[in-house]
Amino acid sequence: MDERRPGLDPSVAEVRRAVRPALRGLGAGSAVVVGLSGGADSLALAAAVAFEGPKAGVRALAVVVDHGLQIGSADVAAAAAAAARGLGLDARVTRVEVAGAGGPEAAARTARYGVLRAAAAEAGAAAVLVAHTLDDQAETVLLGLARGAGAASLQGMSPASDLDGVALLRPLLDVRRATTRAACAAQGLEPWEDPHNADIAYARVRVRERVLPVLEAELGPGIAGALARTAAQLREDAEAFDEMIDETIEDIVEHAEAGISVSVAALAANPAALRNRIIRHVVAAEFGQSLTRGQTIEVARLVTDWSGQGPIDLPGCRARRTGGRIEFAAAAAGGDARPTE
Amino acid sequence: MDERRPGLDPSVAEVRRAVRPALRGLGAGSAVVVGLSGGADSLALAAAVAFEGPKAGVRALAVVVDHGLQIGSADVAAAAAAAARGLGLDARVTRVEVAGAGGPEAAARTARYGVLRAAAAEAGAAAVLVAHTLDDQAETVLLGLARGAGAASLQGMSPASDLDGVALLRPLLDVRRATTRAACAAQGLEPWEDPHNADIAYARVRVRERVLPVLEAELGPGIAGALARTAAQLREDAEAFDEMIDETIEDIVEHAEAGISVSVAALAANPAALRNRIIRHVVAAEFGQSLTRGQTIEVARLVTDWSGQGPIDLPGCRARRTGGRIEFAAAAAGGDARPTE
Repeated sequence: MDERRPGLDPSVAEVRRAVRPALRGLGAGSAVVVGLSGGADSLALAAAVAFEGPKAGVRALAVVVDHGLQIGSADVAAAAAAAARGLGLDARVTRVEVAGAGGPEAAARTARYGVLRAAAAEAGAAAVLVAHTLDDQAETVLLGLARGAGAASLQGMSPASDLDGVALLRPLLDVRRATTRAACAAQGLEPWEDPHNADIAYARVRVRERVLPVLEAELGPGIAGALARTAAQLREDAEAFDEMIDETIEDIVEHAEAGISVSVAALAANPAALRNRIIRHVVAAEFGQSLTRGQTIEVARLVTDWSGQGPIDLPGCRARRTGGRIEFAAAAAGGDARPTE
Repeated sequence: MDERRPGLDPSVAEVRRAVRPALRGLGAGSAVVVGLSGGADSLALAAAVAFEGPKAGVRALAVVVDHGLQIGSADVAAAAAAAARGLGLDARVTRVEVAGAGGPEAAARTARYGVLRAAAAEAGAAAVLVAHTLDDQAETVLLGLARGAGAASLQGMSPASDLDGVALLRPLLDVRRATTRAACAAQGLEPWEDPHNADIAYARVRVRERVLPVLEAELGPGIAGALARTAAQLREDAEAFDEMIDETIEDIVEHAEAGISVSVAALAANPAALRNRIIRHVVAAEFGQSLTRGQTIEVARLVTDWSGQGPIDLPGCRARRTGGRIEFAAAAAGGDARPTE
């Protein structure tokens, strides 16, 4: 095999091996868009796609998004596109205006994925490839842990998800960041160092620079891999539970004018893991609200510890037990205000 | 209620509130054993049990285990027992010889739980109460994360488990260590400071002294609570999957002379979360071995990515696809050595 030929740097071989199944899975004649920032991860990804794409019969277009948030961003973007062309890829730069809710990071991400999605549609590409590594995954898991939303927040990023009808693939999720850096060096590629990556105003940067190094020093160097493996398993678990909920939900809920109700008997018959997920699912689907674990368990007690307790006020709705059902009704506008009769 | 009377320290009230349902759940006329080291956590637990026990009609015996591992341990144990008697509890010291496999920590734990279990049997106690706090739980989760055994290692300690036929209860799993310290101070109790708790040779001490403080500083003070909530949810998830496996396992396995086999169709019909757990379960139950995630997934590929691949060597056994089944056969003694034919 190519990657075993003498002189081929093992890091280059590893990145190519990671990319190969993603491209082969798409099939000859298809096209992909590669999200390129010019950083080491995406540059190594672009290089691997440039090598593996022709062998798999897959065309590739590198798309650089210029967020316009830093001085000189146009030059950085142009240099990244030039590097991609040097690797033999088609490349383009798209400038976006970043604005919107959720802070500048979230707005930039939304804008970026919008551009990649549009480029894929235009190029007839079946997939967008982005360069998140195992280190990114470990950081995502730790950030999720800090948010404290339980297992859901520990699932990290999926290796294959859906971007509005186009596949979003992350072939490097098992590859360390050190490997992408080494692969760039071995191929004479000069990655751009994003100054944001050293700005500790970002929680992700603090995780990278301060938290993970302490975890590795005190608990062993395998911690990033352990976090990534944990995320993968939790994602599987969540998929299994989602499947179970999809299979049963319509049999156990009833829709009414005021809201939705769930059978107490059905909730009681399910293990806590499913019962709590059904409660969260119903409130999310019907009222667009996400319950905390504490709120979820308080509702579950209407089933498991029933002693005639009163209604429970939740975000967007109110839950109460009535007859053999748990009823979720929309909260009256203005909170406790009720119409007089 | 008592804990709201003026002058009652909120920390004392919180520990009592945590202990109350555990004692009431056992019912009047029952007895409990309290595991007491003399440290702040178990001393606060003993004080709360001394207060709540009589109100719930539950007798309590404090048992101090002298592991004999530190100079002066007999004096420490005697002082702890005296403190318990000062609280109005019956108390006894039992000296054990610590020896056995798994390192001194594991041996001491085994010896300690053996003593508590025996004391419960002798006293006719329905439960053993131990004083692990939310901080202990967070440390356990991080240590599990470092072992990297996936979700299974993140479940932490259960609030209620089985100790060889006696209930093992941890009523303080939602209480912070700072609260037990404050409760001791408020009640004029002087906890023993275990010098082991400052010995960074122990991974748990490094987690407590170095890892958690960095996580709290960089990600926010809620991290210990987030870890504990995550553990609780993962424990629920694991129980649900265990239940599903129990319900299906006998229908899909076949026992043969050489080992055990599982239906490919059944494995394929299950979501990955269950498929992988069934594979791990079969190997654990039949060969007493614990598969890594990587090994498990390699076996699963015999189902999901079948292209005629050969047998897979695993700890204690070998897996191969034959006909419509995945067959696990005991590894020949001496590894690859096979009888000549």
